[in-house]
Order: sequence, then C-alpha cells, then structure tokens
Amino acid sequence: DFEMAMINDIKPAFGVSSESVERYAMNGIVNWGQPVSDVLENGKLVLQQTQESNRTPLVSLLMEGPPGSGKTALAASLAAESGFPFVKVCSPEDMVGFLEGGKCNAIKKIFEDAYKSQLSCVVVDDIERLIDYVPIGPRFSNLVLQALLVLLKKNPPKGKKLMIIGTTSRRDVLEEMEMMTVFSTHIHVSNITKGEHIINVISELDSFSEDEKSTLAKKLSGKKLWIGIKKLLVLLEIVRQADMDVRIPKFLTLLEEEGGLQA
Amino acid sequence: DFEMAMINDIKPAFGVSSESVERYAMNGIVNWGQPVSDVLENGKLVLQQTQESNRTPLVSLLMEGPPGSGKTALAASLAAESGFPFVKVCSPEDMVGFLEGGKCNAIKKIFEDAYKSQLSCVVVDDIERLIDYVPIGPRFSNLVLQALLVLLKKNPPKGKKLMIIGTTSRRDVLEEMEMMTVFSTHIHVSNITKGEHIINVISELDSFSEDEKSTLAKKLSGKKLWIGIKKLLVLLEIVRQADMDVRIPKFLTLLEEEGGLQA
Amino acid sequence: DFEMAMINDIKPAFGVSSESVERYAMNGIVNWGQPVSDVLENGKLVLQQTQESNRTPLVSLLMEGPPGSGKTALAASLAAESGFPFVKVCSPEDMVGFLEGGKCNAIKKIFEDAYKSQLSCVVVDDIERLIDYVPIGPRFSNLVLQALLVLLKKNPPKGKKLMIIGTTSRRDVLEEMEMMTVFSTHIHVSNITKGEHIINVISELDSFSEDEKSTLAKKLSGKKLWIGIKKLLVLLEIVRQADMDVRIPKFLTLLEEEGGLQA
Amino acid sequence: DFEMAMINDIKPAFGVSSESVERYAMNGIVNWGQPVSDVLENGKLVLQQTQESNRTPLVSLLMEGPPGSGKTALAASLAAESGFPFVKVCSPEDMVGFLEGGKCNAIKKIFEDAYKSQLSCVVVDDIERLIDYVPIGPRFSNLVLQALLVLLKKNPPKGKKLMIIGTTSRRDVLEEMEMMTVFSTHIHVSNITKGEHIINVISELDSFSEDEKSTLAKKLSGKKLWIGIKKLLVLLEIVRQADMDVRIPKFLTLLEEEGGLQA
Amino acid sequence: DFEMAMINDIKPAFGVSSESVERYAMNGIVNWGQPVSDVLENGKLVLQQTQESNRTPLVSLLMEGPPGSGKTALAASLAAESGFPFVKVCSPEDMVGFLEGGKCNAIKKIFEDAYKSQLSCVVVDDIERLIDYVPIGPRFSNLVLQALLVLLKKNPPKGKKLMIIGTTSRRDVLEEMEMMTVFSTHIHVSNITKGEHIINVISELDSFSEDEKSTLAKKLSGKKLWIGIKKLLVLLEIVRQADMDVRIPKFLTLLEEEGGLQA
Amino acid sequence: DFEMAMINDIKPAFGVSSESVERYAMNGIVNWGQPVSDVLENGKLVLQQTQESNRTPLVSLLMEGPPGSGKTALAASLAAESGFPFVKVCSPEDMVGFLEGGKCNAIKKIFEDAYKSQLSCVVVDDIERLIDYVPIGPRFSNLVLQALLVLLKKNPPKGKKLMIIGTTSRRDVLEEMEMMTVFSTHIHVSNITKGEHIINVISELDSFSEDEKSTLAKKLSGKKLWIGIKKLLVLLEIVRQADMDVRIPKFLTLLEEEGGLQA
Ligand SMILES: Nc1ncnc2c1ncn2[C@@H]1O[C@H](COP(=O)(O)OP(=O)(O)OP(=O)(O)O)[C@@H](O)[C@H]1O
Ligand SMILES: Nc1ncnc2c1ncn2[C@@H]1O[C@H](COP(=O)(O)OP(=O)(O)OP(=O)(O)O)[C@@H](O)[C@H]1O
Ligand SMILES: Nc1ncnc2c1ncn2[C@@H]1O[C@H](COP(=O)(O)OP(=O)(O)OP(=O)(O)O)[C@@H](O)[C@H]1O
Ligand SMILES: Nc1ncnc2c1ncn2[C@@H]1O[C@H](COP(=O)(O)OP(=O)(O)OP(=O)(O)O)[C@@H](O)[C@H]1O
Ligand SMILES: Nc1ncnc2c1ncn2[C@@H]1O[C@H](COP(=O)(O)OP(=O)(O)OP(=O)(O)O)[C@@H](O)[C@H]1O
Ligand SMILES: Nc1ncnc2c1ncn2[C@@H]1O[C@H](COP(=O)(O)OP(=O)(O)OP(=O)(O)O)[C@@H](O)[C@H]1O
Ligand SMILES: [Mg+2]
Ligand SMILES: [Mg+2]
Ligand SMILES: [Mg+2]
Ligand SMILES: [Mg+2]
Ligand SMILES: [Mg+2]
Ligand SMILES: [Mg+2]
Repeated sequence: DFEMAMINDIKPAFGVSSESVERYAMNGIVNWGQPVSDVLENGKLVLQQTQESNRTPLVSLLMEGPPGSGKTALAASLAAESGFPFVKVCSPEDMVGFLEGGKCNAIKKIFEDAYKSQLSCVVVDDIERLIDYVPIGPRFSNLVLQALLVLLKKNPPKGKKLMIIGTTSRRDVLEEMEMMTVFSTHIHVSNITKGEHIINVISELDSFSEDEKSTLAKKLSGKKLWIGIKKLLVLLEIVRQADMDVRIPKFLTLLEEEGGLQA
Repeated sequence: DFEMAMINDIKPAFGVSSESVERYAMNGIVNWGQPVSDVLENGKLVLQQTQESNRTPLVSLLMEGPPGSGKTALAASLAAESGFPFVKVCSPEDMVGFLEGGKCNAIKKIFEDAYKSQLSCVVVDDIERLIDYVPIGPRFSNLVLQALLVLLKKNPPKGKKLMIIGTTSRRDVLEEMEMMTVFSTHIHVSNITKGEHIINVISELDSFSEDEKSTLAKKLSGKKLWIGIKKLLVLLEIVRQADMDVRIPKFLTLLEEEGGLQA
Repeated sequence: DFEMAMINDIKPAFGVSSESVERYAMNGIVNWGQPVSDVLENGKLVLQQTQESNRTPLVSLLMEGPPGSGKTALAASLAAESGFPFVKVCSPEDMVGFLEGGKCNAIKKIFEDAYKSQLSCVVVDDIERLIDYVPIGPRFSNLVLQALLVLLKKNPPKGKKLMIIGTTSRRDVLEEMEMMTVFSTHIHVSNITKGEHIINVISELDSFSEDEKSTLAKKLSGKKLWIGIKKLLVLLEIVRQADMDVRIPKFLTLLEEEGGLQA
Repeated sequence: DFEMAMINDIKPAFGVSSESVERYAMNGIVNWGQPVSDVLENGKLVLQQTQESNRTPLVSLLMEGPPGSGKTALAASLAAESGFPFVKVCSPEDMVGFLEGGKCNAIKKIFEDAYKSQLSCVVVDDIERLIDYVPIGPRFSNLVLQALLVLLKKNPPKGKKLMIIGTTSRRDVLEEMEMMTVFSTHIHVSNITKGEHIINVISELDSFSEDEKSTLAKKLSGKKLWIGIKKLLVLLEIVRQADMDVRIPKFLTLLEEEGGLQA
Repeated sequence: DFEMAMINDIKPAFGVSSESVERYAMNGIVNWGQPVSDVLENGKLVLQQTQESNRTPLVSLLMEGPPGSGKTALAASLAAESGFPFVKVCSPEDMVGFLEGGKCNAIKKIFEDAYKSQLSCVVVDDIERLIDYVPIGPRFSNLVLQALLVLLKKNPPKGKKLMIIGTTSRRDVLEEMEMMTVFSTHIHVSNITKGEHIINVISELDSFSEDEKSTLAKKLSGKKLWIGIKKLLVLLEIVRQADMDVRIPKFLTLLEEEGGLQA
Repeated sequence: DFEMAMINDIKPAFGVSSESVERYAMNGIVNWGQPVSDVLENGKLVLQQTQESNRTPLVSLLMEGPPGSGKTALAASLAAESGFPFVKVCSPEDMVGFLEGGKCNAIKKIFEDAYKSQLSCVVVDDIERLIDYVPIGPRFSNLVLQALLVLLKKNPPKGKKLMIIGTTSRRDVLEEMEMMTVFSTHIHVSNITKGEHIINVISELDSFSEDEKSTLAKKLSGKKLWIGIKKLLVLLEIVRQADMDVRIPKFLTLLEEEGGLQA
C-alpha cells in the first residue's frame, strides 16, 4: 500500500522537514511490487550499517535506474525515514544557472554542514545534472565532478558518521568517469515491467471504479511492458480527464505508445 | 477559417497582452487542414490537464516541426488562448547578443515570475536559439541547456500549477541532449503537404479573385508538395505584386522552386 | 553602361550618404552583361515588396558569389538606390580587432537604429568576416552567429518595415550553419565567364585606344574564362602602366594566369 | 599482526601528528601477507637513502596500485614512521572545489614549507585527483600537472633533503604524461589475491568467533580472488551486522560478487 | 653586387629610418642570381602601380618562401627603397608575449597611422608569428587573423594610397585560411639552388682569398643544393673561424650536411 | 676526470654565480667518454663564434637528448665556463605554478636583461616544461611557445651579442612546432651505452674499493646498455647503502632492471 506512513513518520530534524521531502516524493511511494520492497529494504540496511559500525564512518550508496523510475523519490524517502539528525537533499533544482564554481560551493557547503552533525545523510540527487553532463561532446563540469569524487571518499571528522545517497540515470557515464568504484555500494531502481505492477498501482489510487479495475486486471494480466512510475502517473492523470466510457481503452492505447505494452 | 477570434478572446493577464501575442502570430492562425485542427485540439487538452489535475502540477509540451511550419505562432496562440493568469513567451528575440549567463538569468527570471502565479503558462520558444546551437562542432551553451533541463522537471511551489510549451526545429538534437525524455509529451507541427491545403489558405486570404481561385484549385487538386506556412505567405505576397495575368503561373513556378510541387 | 547614375540618384537619408556608398562601390557598377542586369532587377523587386506589403514587414535577401565578384558593391548600390529613409552598411571594416561582444553590440545597435525608421535597409556585409569564420577548425564566433540568426528573423516593431541584404562568399558554410533557411530569398552574383563580358568592361573604361579595343575584341570573342570584376579591374590597372605596344599581349597573359583564359 | 605499533611510534614533528595520520590510515595497517611486508621494507630503504646520501638530496617514490588497495594508508604510515622533522600529506581532500590556481598554490606552499626543514617527507596523495583527471577527454589540470612535473625534480636548497611519496591508481596515465620517468623509483601496492590473505586479515580483527574462523579457513584455503583491503573491510563490517548463523555464507556470497572468489 | 646602395638611398621618412631597416636586413641584399633580381624588379613594379593608379588605391603583395630565404630582408629593403612618406614594419619582434588583443591593437595602430599619410607602405612580417600559428592543432589567434583578413582588403580613406607587403614561410597555411585570395598579388622568394649562386655570394664577401675562391668555384660549378641565404651566411661565419688550410673542406662538409650538396 | 675545475674557473659575472650553476650541475661533469668530450668541445666552438663574429650577433644552440642524460648540467656548465659578462639560466624551476602570462614575462625579462650586456649567454632549460607541454592532447602554452619562437630569432640591439642554449628531451615535438629550423645549430647529448663508460664513472667516484672496481670492470667490459648519467648516480647511491658483500651483485641487478644491461 501507499507508504505515506513512512513519510509522515519523519522526526523533526536539522536541515530537513516533511515538507521538503514531499517536494521530492510528491506522490508518495506506491509499493507496486517486489523491486520496490527490495530497494527500501536494502537501503535501510545500509542506513543501519552507517549508524552502527565504527570501522566504516562513511558509507555511500548509489541508486541508479532509467529516467522517471522513481530514484529521487526513493532516495528522499529513505533519507527522511532514517531519523538521522541531519538530512539534506543536494539538488540541481536549487542551483539553476549556477556557474560551476557556485555549484561546487553549494555542494561543499552541504557536506560541511553534514560534518558538524554526529550522524548525517546527504542525498546527492541527479548527478548528471549536478555535473552539467550532456552526451554531445560529451561536456560536463570537471570542477564539480572532481569535487564529488573527493567528497564521496573523504571521511567525516573523527567520531562523526555520514551516509551519502547518490542518484543517476546514467550508470554507464559514472563508470567511465571512475565514480562507480568510489561508491561503497549501489542499488538498481527498475521500471515497471509487468501488467501486475500496473494493477497494483491502480489499486492504490482512487482514479478508477471497481468495474474498471477488474476489466484492466484481465487485459493486463501476464503482459510485459516498460514504463517508469513517473510517466505512469501522468498517463493515469490524462485518462482521468476523459469520459468514463473511453477511459480504459484510452489508457491501454497510451500504455502501448509510451510503455511498450504489446497490443 | 481564420482563427483570429481565438486571439481576440484573450482575457487581460499579467505578463501577456494581445499585442505581444500578435508579435508571434503576426498573420493569425489559418486552419488549412486537419493537422492544424489536431495541434490546436491536443494542445488544449494538455492545458486542461494542467488546470485540473492535482497530481501533475507541472506539465511540459514540446511542439516540434520543420523551420517555418508555424510552431511559434501556434504555441503563442495556445498560451494566449489558455486564459491562465500568467502567460509569457521566453524568446531569443529578447536576448540578442546576451552571453550565456545573461540568458540563464533572463530565463530563470521568467520561471520565478511564473512560480508566483496560481496557474502559469511559459512558452520556451526556439530552443536551438536559446541554447545557441549550431551544427558545426556542434556548439551550444551548456549553461543554458542545463538550466532548461532542470527547469523542465522542477515542480512549481506547493499549490501552484505550471504548463511549459517548448518549440524546436531540431527534435533530433533535443533527443541527443536527452531533453526529449524530460518533456511530459510532444506534438508534431507539420508542413503543408497537399494542394488542397494551399487552396484552403488562399480561400482565407483576400489576395486572389474568384476566377484565379478556381483555376488554382484545378491545377493543385491532388498534388503533393512540402512547404511551411511561413514561406507560403511570403510567396503569396510576392505574387500579389505581379501583374494580374501572370499571377497564377508565377505562383505555380515559385511553388515548384520553393515548395517541391511537381510541375 | 556605367550605372554611376544610380549612385548619384541617392536621396539624402539618415545613416547613409553618397560618399559612404562610394566607399563600398569605389569603381561604380559596370553593367558587363545579363547577370549584372538580373541581379539589379531582382534586387529592386525585393526592395519593392518590402515597401509595399503589409503581411511581410521583414524581408531578407542574401547575395552570394565568389570572392571579388562584386557582392559588396552591388549590395551597397541597391541599398543606396532604395531611397529608404534609413540605409546602413554593417561592415567588418568598422570592427577590426573587436572582440565578439563588441561586434554583437555594434551589429545590434545598427538594427535598433533601423527599427526606429518607418522603412529601413541594412546591408550585413561579408558574413564570414562578421562571424570571424576560418575553415581551419572551423572556428567562428558563435555569439555573433546566433545574434545574426535571431536578427534575421525578428520582425521590426508594429508598423515598421525592414529589408536586410546579406553578402557572403561561402554559401556552403551558411548552409551548414542553418542560416540559409532564415533568409527570405537569395541571389547569385557571378564571376565574369565570357570574352564578351570583358569587352563590355573595357568599353566602359577609358584605358584602351579604339585600335586596342578591336584587337582585343577579336582575340576574346567566344572565349571562356572565370574572373571576378574586382581582380579584372586590378589587371587592367597593371596593364595601363605598361608601354603602349605590350599592353594587349601583357593583358592576355595576365588573363591566362589569373582568369583561366585558354591561350 | 596489526602494525598499530608503527603508528604509535611517531615522534612529535612539525606539520604532522599521529592524529592526522590516523585520518589517512583509519584502520591501521594489517600485515596480511608478503606484499605488505615488501612495500614497508622497500619504503623504509628509500627513506634511509634520503637521510644518508649527500649526492641525492631529492628522492621520489611512487606507490601505485588498484583503487582501494591501501596506497594512501601505506604512504601516510611510511611518512609518519620516518621520524623526519617535517612530514606532510598533500591531499585533494583539503582542496575540494579549488580552481587549478588555488591547487597549485596549496601544493607549492607545502613544498616551500618542506624546503625549510633539514629533512622532509611530502606525500603527494591521489595524483589523479590532484590534477583533476577524468578519462573522458581526457581532461585534467595541466597547470597542476606541470607544477608537479617540475617539483618532482627540483632539488631542495643546498644542504636540505627531501623525500616525496606519490600515490596513484592510474600508472598508465602517469606514463602517458611522462611523469613516470621523473620519479626516482616506484613500488606496486597489490590487491589481496589469495584465500590465505583473507584469513590473515580476519585473524587480526575481532569480528569472528574461533569456530567461524576455522570454517572460513577451510572454505578459503587455496582459493584465488582479487579485492582491495578497503573494500574487504567494508564487507566484513556488513557481515558483522548480520545474524550469527548467516555470517559465514553471507560473507562468502559477498566475496564472490565483489571479490571475484570462485564459488 | 651588394645592393647596400639601395639601403643607403633611403630618404628620411616618417615612421622609418635607415637604422630600423638595417635591423631587418642586417647583412644587406647580396644579388646572388636571377631570382633576387626578379624579386626586386617585380616588387618595384607593384610599388609603382600603387603610387600611380587612381582606381587601385590599395595594393597588397605577399612574399612567400622557405624559412631563412631572405623574405624579411627583401620586404624591408623594398619598403625602405620606396621613398613613400610613411614606411613601417609590423613585426612580431615588437610584440613578444602580447596577448591577442594587444597584438590586434598594435597592428591596427600601424594601419591607422598609415591611413594618415598620402602614400604609405606597411610590411606585415612573418604572418605565422603574428597570428601565433603552430601546426599542432593547429592553433593560432583567430582574432589577429580576422583583423588581418579585413585590413588586407580595407581601402585607405579617399585620396590616400597604401601598399601592404606580407611575408610568410607557410603559403599553404595562408591558403587554408583563405588569405591568399585577399592579396592582390604574390612573389616567391627562393632558396639558393646552384653552386654558381654560392660563388656569387662568396665573391661579395671578403671572407676568402682569391685562391680559395677559385678552388671553390671548381668544386661547386654545376652542383645542385638547397639552402637559404640566412643559414649560408652562418656557415660562412663558422668557416671563417677555422684554420686557413681546413676552411674549404670544412665549408664543403657543412654544405653537404645543411644544404643538401651532393658530395 | 671530474671537470669540477671547469666550474671553479667561473669568473664573477652579473646574473650568475658559481653557486647557482652548482644548483644545475650538482654532481659536476664526469667525463665518462668521447660523447661528453664532443659536447663540451662543440659547445665551446659555438661560444667562440658568438664572441668573435660581427655578421652573426645571435647564435642559438639546442642540446637535445633523453631524460636524465645530463643536458641541464652540460648547458649550465658551458654557460658558466663562457666567461661572458651576463649568464643566466631561464628555468621552469623558478616558475612553478605560473600562468602562461607570468611565464612569458619572466622569460622576456631575462632576454631584456641579456640585451643590456655586450655579450650574453642565456640557457633556456627544459623547453617542454617552459611551454607546459604534455603529450595527451597534446597541450602546451602557445603564448610561451610563440614568445620563444620570436626570441630565438630576434637579433640583440646593434653592437650586442647573444648566445642562447636550449635544452629538450623531445626533439620530435620541437620539430613539429617548427622550432628546430629556428635554432642555428644543435648538439645531441647521449645516454651511457657501454660498459666502459660505467667503469669510467665509477673510477671518478670514491664509492667502490679497488677490488670491486676490477670485478666490475671484468663483468661490464664490452657490454651494451642504455642509461642516463642522472639515474646512474642514483643507482650508485643506493648500492652504497648496501652491505659490502652484496654491493656488486646488487648494482648489476639494478643495471639490468633500469639500464637495459643484458644479464
Ligand atoms: N514506488 C515508487 N517509487 C518511486 N516513486 C514513486 C513510487 N510510487 C510513486 N512514486 C512517485 O513517482 C514519482 C517519481 O518521480 P522521481 O522524480 O522520483 O523519478 P526519478 O527517477 O528521480 O526521475 P528523473 O529520472 O527524471 O530524475 C514521484 O512523484 C513519486 O512520489
Ligand atoms: N495554421 C497556421 N499555423 C501557424 N502559423 C500560421 C498559420 N496560419 C498562418 N500562420 C502564420 O504563419 C507564420 C508562422 O511563422 P512562425 O514564426 O510561427 O513559424 P515557425 O515554425 O516558428 O518558424 P521558425 O522555424 O523560423 O521558428 C505566422 O506569421 C503566423 O501568423
Ligand atoms: N558590375 C559590377 N558589379 C560589382 N562591382 C563592380 C561592377 N562593376 C564594377 N565594379 C567594381 O568592382 C569592385 C567590386 O568589389 P567588391 O568589394 O564589391 O567585391 P566583393 O565580391 O564584395 O569582394 P569580396 O569577396 O572580397 O568581399 C568595386 O570596386 C566595384 O565598384
Ligand atoms: N595492509 C594494509 N595496507 C593498506 N591499508 C590497510 C592495510 N590494512 C588495513 N588497511 C586499512 O585499509 C584502508 C585502505 O584505504 P586507503 O584509502 O589507504 O586505500 P587507497 O588505495 O588509497 O584507496 P583509493 O584508491 O580510493 O585512494 C585504510 O583504512 C587502512 O587503515
Ligand atoms: N639576396 C638576399 N636576399 C635576402 N637576404 C639577404 C640577401 N643577401 C643577404 N641577405 C641577408 O640574409 C639575411 C636574410 O634573413 P631574413 O631574416 O630576411 O630571412 P627570412 O626569410 O625572413 O627568415 P625567416 O624565415 O626566419 O623569417 C639577412 O641578414 C639579409 O641581410
Ligand atoms: N658528463 C655529465 N654530463 C651531464 N651531467 C653529469 C655528467 N657527469 C655528472 N653529471 C651529473 O649528472 C646529473 C645530470 O642531471 P641533469 O639534470 O643535467 O640531466 P637532464 O638531462 O637535464 O635531466 P632532465 O631530462 O630530467 O632535465 C647532474 O647532477 C650532473 O652534475
Ligand atoms: Mg530524479
Ligand atoms: Mg519559431
Ligand atoms: Mg565584399
Ligand atoms: Mg588513496
Ligand atoms: Mg623573416
Ligand atoms: Mg634538465
């Protein structure tokens, strides 16, 4: 079911508030299948290791997956969930139009704040955007990249603990940039791939009638597709505007066009 | 018929006036065929979704098509038509000679203004020009590109709604730059491809006599061609300067040279 | 015959004087054959369209041809001839050593001045030089290029009319830079290609005796060559310094070396 | 056994303290096999030569090996161990977000300080990061690179002696940059490659019971693998969080995934 | 014979003095054969055309030839010889370490000074160095290149006349940069290619005895070689330091090594 | 024998002192074979030519050879030996971290100082480092390169004389940069290639006993190898720290590893 509970659990903390997390997980986390449970469970284990080990005061976790698969929402939810006294999302959305020097300073500032708390969690969101990556060239900010490469392996001061959660849609690029070997570990965030997953999502939302749901369940059962949760939510919203009688066929058409559903 | 009505409908709004829209759709929108109706209809649906959904407070629509096919005029008309309290065209025409920093600031400013209104529509016109793209190299402003990539997926503040309409002649380039996956959806604006379309345009204008129109109708009926509405209007204007008796043959010759009409 | 008349016709106008045009057409326009008449006639038609149409307040014409074929002189003459209240040549000669920012500002200033007049004509001379183009690389100022790409399709303010005449020796490069589709229309300025053309030029100048002229006419009649008017005028000047009896053979030798005349 | 002794031996020195070395060798130096002994022994010989020779007042040693193999910890330990009056680690961790000019100055400052002492040891850690190297391009700071190329062969002032210890994971890159010929000598730091090495590490730590150790010894004896000490310590820490009964199998699984152990 | 006379002839002139020309033709102009006479004669014809024609107030001449063939000395001598009231050498030797902006200004200043005189001659020496050309890349200052491309075809003010003499060792590079078509004309400066040329040079200098001269004449008569006058003068100077009896054989050996003389 | 004498001979001079030369030839010049004598002899001839000729007031000599072959020491010794009133080493060691502008100024300053003396010798050491050359790219400072290209052929003021000695390990790169044709002449500095050369070096040093020397002489006689004097001196220093009985075998092993000696 909708893990809104998780987000509501957040204890008041320096640098984070439930409102700011809502910004990154606007539609909550729908547990549409095993892949979602796995991500949440593995993520929590790493949070736990950070909190409990004395030998590894720095742990870094990369969440990688296709565009719109829900990486940012999952990372922000884990961070909010952690209960760590310092939680912060380092997001390109707060650095629009910054030159690389300004970006570096903004990122460095977040880490310096984190180093002051006993136990901190920093989400380094959308690494391609933070480093201004574009495949043509390719071009990117080497200044920001090098700062990240160092920050990702720099221990917090003695006695402090830090967990870093990165997100990216371009694991291959990070590999080329030798950033993969710097992360302690990584988790794959996957797209929705089965009809059953869709049915799970719909059950969580209040968009369809019981009749519509059972029709859909029949049509989608056992089917393969490939769509991110972010786009799926947009499609459902479009369909909601349509007349009652064309909602199901319209949704199936959209799923075929955008989600690779075999007609 | 001439959808001048549409433009005259515009309600007074902060950031837009009927005069400023006229600047981008100087000759109105001639409904020369089904493709035009489709663009207008689909565009209105997206506007509606923005206005009505609570789950998708940010919707972005890309209008892409060949040079001179009418993208800017259509986007500006839709925006003006929307009736949203904030409507603004973000155009390279207002940034001639700006360095990339200046462009970024100008673009960011428009979005910040938009975030202040409950319901806003921003046209991001001529994306290649905004990012200073040239195929030799290729070269472009990565600073502006990255700002757009972030702004296109940054949610407006809680409770606010934003629709973004982009235009481009180089869909392929946007694909390479990974901007296509960032737009919620896209519409193709097509060139005029049939003789019938031309006849529809001419019927809307007062340039030809009834006799000329019927001669043309016979000559063009069932013919294939490929020409943008912008160039077609120029050709008609050239022909208008000519002597009465050579107007039709001169027009046909020009259509062959510039519009691929088979003689 | 020598169209000096044309240049002397110029009405006093803001931003241009007969002296400043003389600078660009130092040796007047010799009408050496049909290609010259065609350029002048077509150019005048476009000027007329600008002046008379209300639907196309912006018309842009590209004059393209080999180095030294007379593009600048022809463009400046047309502009001076136009009788428009505002006429200005935007020339790299006034921007020697300018950085790209300075060039942009200078160009933008000329257009802003033009927008203030009811009816304006701006010559954008030697586009390769304005954009600092060099084939090695290739390198060029993208800042200036982008400014031109926008200015070439930006409408003048409501009620104003603007004609832009561009010149270039590298049509291929402008094509690659996607500038060709931005011009409303273009005219080819050609080199001199026939013996008859040369004889026409000589008849206009006072450099040779009647005897010499008829000898030359016999030698050149029906011959093919390829030489720009600019270089031809230099050769004639060299020959003029020579002794009477060697003038004709010296001229023929030079034409073979520099103008591809078959011996 | 754990050579913590070594680190505790450090005599008070200008520019270094046992605490600052702990920062770079947070988990001490576990002597897991012959490769470790060799590195320590050879390193000490070079330190000795620096101290005793009059003909070679500058000696530079490069420690190169795969990511996480323990280069930084070994270099820092050798430096701390040296007993030289001036010991300093020149680390990218102190230069996050510095522009190349700032980096150069910071590096130059450390060398200038070193030149003031009779006998100095400077660790130039993580050369790829100091020069902002990234394989895409490749890109790097040539300013910092050139400064290093000169500092690595510049003699200290008359009568002073200097030992430089560099570390790198990209020996091949340094070769391409002609930095290899500048170092006086180099030592390879290797990953753990045998089951026996693992057993040695575990014996040094207090993480496993005697039973577990002997089970592991049997499973790993004679096996081949390839893992850096840094990652191995993380895996052991993960396993420590697990329930008693799954610790051994979980550890073996992780070794297979991350350390190339054949199942 | 030594055309020192030519240099001594120079009339006092604004911007030039016999001393400053000596700097560029330190060892005068030895007339070692027909190629030298040809260069001087053709050069003088172009000077004359500049002075006498009214249709071509701007003439530009390029002197191109291998490194050390005497281009600078010949250009400076022609300029000094011209008797024009304004004569100036624009040389990279006066711009060591200038950034491209500084170079542009220095060059522009020389032309602006020249435009003030009725009749001016500007030597643009060593164009590759003026534009900071290096074949690796290739790299060069596009700012300086573009300034030259414009200055080379910009007419002096009405009633003024200007001759420009350029020098280069890389005609091929100027071709690629489209600078060749901008020069009105060009002259090739050749290396010494025959034994007879050498004998002529030696006869002009006082370095050898009559006996030595006749021995050399026999040895070199009819031989082919390839050496610039600049290097030849150095070789003769080296030989002069040697003992009387080894001078001739030493000279022949050096000519074989450096000048391609077949033994 | 050790040519320490040479260095001690230096007459007091403006801009140089025996101490500053010692810095560049810290271990003197061991005359290990004919190649060393040849370099010294040829170098002295060029110094002499500079001093005595009036036609060639500027002579430039390039010393090129593999890394560590002794180029800097030889160039500095020749300069110190010259007895010229102005002697200066222009070394990258004095420009660590300088930007290219700073480097240019520093180099230009040295030449301007040199031009003030009647007779000057400037060593331009390690040209690759002065121009910040790195083979990846390749990258280098074109500003410094162009300054050197001009300074290397710019005559000193009338009546003054200047000798320039350059050093480089990358003759091929200088060739590509067209710097080779600018030097008046060049000398190759070679590595040690024969067993006999090694024996000569050892005889000059006091590191080995007579017994050891004769053993080595037998082992090395007639052997081929390839090692620079700089590295050889380091190896001998390492061996000196070893126990008496292992010194010879250890030295032979090191020579095999580092100097290509066939076992
Ligand atoms: N199980 C889920 N996992 C992730 N997000 C979910 C889930 N269920 C619902 N959502 C919602 O889906 C949206 C996911 O968007 P999000 O921005 O996190 O995707 P993303 O992968 O970061 O996209 P991008 O690649 O553009 O950065 C959010 O609005 C989130 O609230
Ligand atoms: N059906 C139509 N669609 C679009 N434009 C139309 C239509 N009918 C008439 N027009 C007129 O055609 C012109 C279209 O030009 P517009 O600048 O919009 O084209 P564009 O595709 O944006 O060109 P560019 O590729 O150069 O940016 C406008 O003057 C507009 O008023
Ligand atoms: N029919 C003609 N057309 C053009 N120019 C002519 C003609 N007759 C004479 N001229 C003279 O020839 C010269 C042409 O030079 P112009 O600078 O216009 O050539 P261009 O093609 O612009 O050269 P470039 O390619 O170098 O810019 C001018 O001096 C002009 O007065
Ligand atoms: N024998 C050993 N050699 C090196 N480090 C050891 C050894 N035993 C334990 N360690 C510990 O292992 C860790 C090695 O990490 P270190 O940062 O030195 O690796 P690195 O090779 O420099 O990594 P990177 O390639 O990321 O720079 C340190 O915490 C150190 O205390
Ligand atoms: N016939 C001659 N032509 C040119 N130079 C001569 C001649 N006779 C003697 N010289 C002397 O030869 C030298 C030629 O050097 P110059 O610098 O002019 O050559 P350059 O071709 O410009 O060399 P670079 O390619 O290096 O610029 C001068 O010292 C000049 O006085
Ligand atoms: N015959 C010799 N020639 C040169 N150097 C010698 C000789 N004999 C002893 N030496 C000593 O050998 C060392 C040579 O080092 P030097 O820095 O001159 O080499 P290099 O070729 O300039 O090196 P690099 O390529 O790193 O610049 C100096 O310490 C010098 O005193
Ligand atoms: Mg995201
Ligand atoms: Mg448009
Ligand atoms: Mg022109
Ligand atoms: Mg390290
Ligand atoms: Mg020269
Ligand atoms: Mg050296």
